[in-house]
Amino acid sequence: PSQTRRTKRARRAKPCSVRELELTVSELGLGYDSDETVMLRYCSGKCAAQRRNYDVTMEHMMRTGFRKKDRKDKVSVGPCCRPTAFEKDFSFLDNRSRYHTIQNISAKNCGCV
Amino acid sequence: PSQTRRTKRARRAKPCSVRELELTVSELGLGYDSDETVMLRYCSGKCAAQRRNYDVTMEHMMRTGFRKKDRKDKVSVGPCCRPTAFEKDFSFLDNRSRYHTIQNISAKNCGCV
Repeated sequence: PSQTRRTKRARRAKPCSVRELELTVSELGLGYDSDETVMLRYCSGKCAAQRRNYDVTMEHMMRTGFRKKDRKDKVSVGPCCRPTAFEKDFSFLDNRSRYHTIQNISAKNCGCV
Repeated sequence: PSQTRRTKRARRAKPCSVRELELTVSELGLGYDSDETVMLRYCSGKCAAQRRNYDVTMEHMMRTGFRKKDRKDKVSVGPCCRPTAFEKDFSFLDNRSRYHTIQNISAKNCGCV
């Protein structure tokens, strides 16, 4: 009973980092038809620890400040978890044996930018 | 009459750039009470021209791909218009004549990152 009364702890948000997922080239959504597999690395997670005064002010401006000043700007109110470098070009054969090369598809590093 | 029949052209989205706005320090939303004014520079605008294969794939993954793979990741599906450098520290007196310094509040440069 004492256990059931315990409040649930909020799930800790994972920080921005590289994640990976094995996909076929077809599943990348770029319009290629190929059953070759590729390890797709991408960036996901929180950047809360990297917030600065700029972000606090932008959040405030988006809530009330821009309207008061008659501005319609949309601004990001926190750092974005984005690739800071991409892996080298990736080549594959499609299902009709044509050779293709894709650039800038898989993240090498991620950062809060 | 021929003019009224013309279809409206979509408003061209402005690219990511530095915008500026004169504010009092109080209006920054950081909790300071000061009527001193500051030129706040911030980043706003579109980064559509900087989209890469990564972003096309991430948009696809957010629509359908992650669900199929039983992932719940949230990812950014395009570059963010963010400060790439901040102006130097800004100092001011609050309304009780106390001296304060704020760092990382005003964008020096913006970029699609």
